Formats: sequence, C-alpha cells, structure tokens
Amino acid sequence: MSERYLEDFQAGDRFRSAEHTVSEAEIIDYARLYDPQSFHTDPAAAKHSIFGGLAASGWYTAAITMRLIAQSEIRVAGGLIGMGVDQLRWPRPVRPGDTLHVDAEVLEVRPSRSHPDRGIVRVRNTTVNQAGETVQTMETALFVPRRSTA
Amino acid sequence: MSERYLEDFQAGDRFRSAEHTVSEAEIIDYARLYDPQSFHTDPAAAKHSIFGGLAASGWYTAAITMRLIAQSEIRVAGGLIGMGVDQLRWPRPVRPGDTLHVDAEVLEVRPSRSHPDRGIVRVRNTTVNQAGETVQTMETALFVPRRSTA
Repeated sequence: MSERYLEDFQAGDRFRSAEHTVSEAEIIDYARLYDPQSFHTDPAAAKHSIFGGLAASGWYTAAITMRLIAQSEIRVAGGLIGMGVDQLRWPRPVRPGDTLHVDAEVLEVRPSRSHPDRGIVRVRNTTVNQAGETVQTMETALFVPRRSTA
Repeated sequence: MSERYLEDFQAGDRFRSAEHTVSEAEIIDYARLYDPQSFHTDPAAAKHSIFGGLAASGWYTAAITMRLIAQSEIRVAGGLIGMGVDQLRWPRPVRPGDTLHVDAEVLEVRPSRSHPDRGIVRVRNTTVNQAGETVQTMETALFVPRRSTA
C-alpha cells in the first residue's frame, strides 16, 4: 500500500480496519495503569456497578481504535497526526471477548489556509463490536501533506 | 476525602491533580502498543518528523490525564463515568521529562431529564507541563448521582 496525500482523499471515502478481540486481562491491565476504577479492574466489584459487569475504560477503547486505524490502509504520508478529536462518545460498554473493528468515513477534505503544503481531512471513526453495535464514535481532524510539495 | 454527589458540585469549582513526570521509556512503550508511529517510538526517526523529536502519542497524554483525574479529589460517588468528550486538543507535544498535572474546572451542573437519580457535570480538563504550557484540553460530561437517592 502506498502512502496517501491530501489529493488522494475525498469526502465519502470509507476504510475498514482489521479486527481485535479484547480479553479480560487486557481490560484490567490497561485500567490498572490508566483508569484505576473497580468497574474496569475487578470483575466481582463490577457486577454491582452501573455497568453490571467488567467494562473496558473508554480510553482503552480509544487506544485500540488508534492502533486499528494506524494499521489500516488509511496510511497518511508522514503519519497520522491528529489536530484533535470531537464528539468522542462511548454509547455501549466494551466487554471481555468483544471483537472490535473500526469503520472510518472521510467527512471533509480541505487545504489549510495557514499552511499551503498541507490540508485537513476530517474523518468519522466508528468502533463496532461483533454484534454490529457501536461502542465508540469520534471525529478526528488529520493533518495531511499535499502531494505537490512532497 | 468523601465522595461527591451532584449537590457537591457547582460551576466554577476548580481542582488540581497531582503531577506525573513522563519518561522516554513510557512514551515508547505506550506507542508501541497503541500508536505505533516512528515519531512516538523512535527518538532518531522522530528528529526528522514534523515533531522534531520524540513526542508522546496524544492518546498517552489522555491516559495520563485520566489517571491523574481518577486519583484527584474530584472523587465522584460511584466513580468517574464519562458520557463522552468534546474538543480534545493537543496544542503542544509532550516530551520525555515533562512533568504534567491537570487543572479541572466545573463548567455546568444540571440534573438529568431522563434519570432523576443523577445529573451531569461538565468539566474542562487542561493538562499542563512544568513550564505552564497547555499540552491537552478537553471537555468531559460526567454522570454524577444525586445525594437524595444514594
């Protein structure tokens, strides 16, 4: 797969990532380090929480999503460099054994006003489980170089 | 420190987290697992990237931020449960050796229309380095139980 420049994207383009199956150990290990709350680290305690059982930290779902995108065929020249993220939502918990993938859709492609050598590609990323249920959505704005200046 | 209910928050409340110093090894270890791009994993290659040197993945900065908030005195009863995040931005890279803390400010407190036993607290979290420079901002909406139903 070759690297993509601004000219290689257009609104409506869609990409689908590979899959990743989430284990209970991963959920717990991530949460112990970065989101130490019992509904993310302790299956027994999680049963009595609002989640009704062990649930991944949303930040772990975001981390898996980032890796799946980085390994996907989006392959922006120079790397995936995000200006920021909007509307990051976790409508449904990620559970041990869930198999996730990411569906990415290009929303907008536009040249940068301040940097003529690059542009901005807005992408909606939807992380989906094996039942087709959405577990995370977000919109990202990526810096993407223009081919003419490469 | 006792746990906080909706009635214990009001717009304008501020919290400051503890600090965390970020090592080069941490930046690399996180990125290898979740954001495998050379400007996050390879100090030599990173010199020739847009970052001009090794920079933490934004998702690692978000993970550190989450831990600092979880360990802070915000201490929501039942745990920190985010409905979502808006305006997540990384205006400046995090570098090896940076010492980060989080300044949190309550923007809004309101009862839930659909769930009378809880409400929503909107918080702006600003992650700041040792020079006082902002490395991450975000707004989170937290589910917070009401005391009357506890």
